[in-house]
Amino acid sequence: MSDRFSFNQATANRWAIPDLVAGCVDAGVTRVGLWREQVADFGLEKTAALVKDAGIEVTSLCRGGFFSKPEWYEENRRAIEEARVLGAPVLVLVSGGLPPGSRDIDAARRHVGDAVGRLVPAAVEAGVQLAIEPLHPMFASDRCVVSSLGQALDLAAPYPAEAVGVVVDTYHLWWDDAVWAQIARAGREGRIACFQAADWITPLPEGVLLGRALPGEGCVELRRFRAAVDAAGYTGPVEVEVFHADLWARPGAEILAATIAAYREHVA
Amino acid sequence: MSDRFSFNQATANRWAIPDLVAGCVDAGVTRVGLWREQVADFGLEKTAALVKDAGIEVTSLCRGGFFSKPEWYEENRRAIEEARVLGAPVLVLVSGGLPPGSRDIDAARRHVGDAVGRLVPAAVEAGVQLAIEPLHPMFASDRCVVSSLGQALDLAAPYPAEAVGVVVDTYHLWWDDAVWAQIARAGREGRIACFQAADWITPLPEGVLLGRALPGEGCVELRRFRAAVDAAGYTGPVEVEVFHADLWARPGAEILAATIAAYREHVA
Repeated sequence: MSDRFSFNQATANRWAIPDLVAGCVDAGVTRVGLWREQVADFGLEKTAALVKDAGIEVTSLCRGGFFSKPEWYEENRRAIEEARVLGAPVLVLVSGGLPPGSRDIDAARRHVGDAVGRLVPAAVEAGVQLAIEPLHPMFASDRCVVSSLGQALDLAAPYPAEAVGVVVDTYHLWWDDAVWAQIARAGREGRIACFQAADWITPLPEGVLLGRALPGEGCVELRRFRAAVDAAGYTGPVEVEVFHADLWARPGAEILAATIAAYREHVA
Repeated sequence: MSDRFSFNQATANRWAIPDLVAGCVDAGVTRVGLWREQVADFGLEKTAALVKDAGIEVTSLCRGGFFSKPEWYEENRRAIEEARVLGAPVLVLVSGGLPPGSRDIDAARRHVGDAVGRLVPAAVEAGVQLAIEPLHPMFASDRCVVSSLGQALDLAAPYPAEAVGVVVDTYHLWWDDAVWAQIARAGREGRIACFQAADWITPLPEGVLLGRALPGEGCVELRRFRAAVDAAGYTGPVEVEVFHADLWARPGAEILAATIAAYREHVA
């Protein structure tokens, strides 16, 4: 595929890295988004060599962040280094939720900004852009205190755009009537580091993490999002990233084929 | 209780109306928020007579809205009339989600504003204030397209404040960093019709409707919310409204006692 499609590996999270790479080559897919856990399972250097030999570009590495954990600094330094080794230009940061027992979301959000700032020198040195990802507000307490694109841009604002960008993920942002203006702002500020597409369906499952759908199965105006990031000057890859238990149960090659078809029909 | 506490009946939703009223009298509670289904089960006129004889004030009726349904107009006219008969000064409006098959959330939101406008004359005539309730964005597709207090205020803006107000519910709004400014705005515009308190806990259950907690059990800065509505000039009742399967399984009087205790410690 010569267009902008990138297959985020979380969409087929039981597909081992060698099978994923072979499957992408077979399907003509030249871009993937990778996850640290799966990369670590197969081996960082081995993964880097495998994707390079296969002519596959790693569009992003998920994920750093989780700044509510005491060990956040060392953990994120490792994540930046892994992104560098993989040749991933972008490290996605999911900020983490409230510290245990805390009700102070303002303080948690300020801490995210400060923590990102402390990582900037290492990111610049590695040539990796940190990408703050706002997650849907239903994750605000336990997974990500950054809940809107505007908030992510405010947190990124003190730092150079080449060091700190944002992720625009349709699943997390579709409900927000300010998102169109904030996408335009993100473009003006040169901060759209990554664009991810997934669709919204209900009912949400217990824990709400695995409720996403392939493009076209839900209610998100996906093509409007793609047109908006395009209009904002974004020319990078379009990752499709879907978490759903039923999807994960299917064979990897089948998931990839379904994802490509859904992308072509509803996003591209 | 001589303070502002109001017991929303959804917190003990298996408690039949006569038991609820007797339980409130026993506990010295003089204010309740009622729900249309339970009122209909016991009988509208009977409920109105019962609460009046018991010296109990109905602070709100839940709920009108659901403007995505074809029969929304007649349904809401009935709800306004029921509020009038009960002496409830406020009818809570949950807007409804997207129409079946639709992805046009902007249109759905505009329709909410138009629909509320069509109900204004009946509301004014009945002496009932319509209260647009923003629900958490996790309900945006299937229950309520109004997702923030600012959005609710924008929808209410064309109409007189005595006819159209908003609900400030801590459970739905706690994640929003704009909420403090919007509460101040709501106060300036005279539109805080109802203040409801519930706490946020995780993991969310399947369907996410029954995941709320009693004040103090979660991460919401409840007293900050109460202070904010007070500072905005709101002097009305403070309803505690919690939906949780485990809570509902307990005897009504026990739920009421736990709710009063939680209110006193974490909200009042």
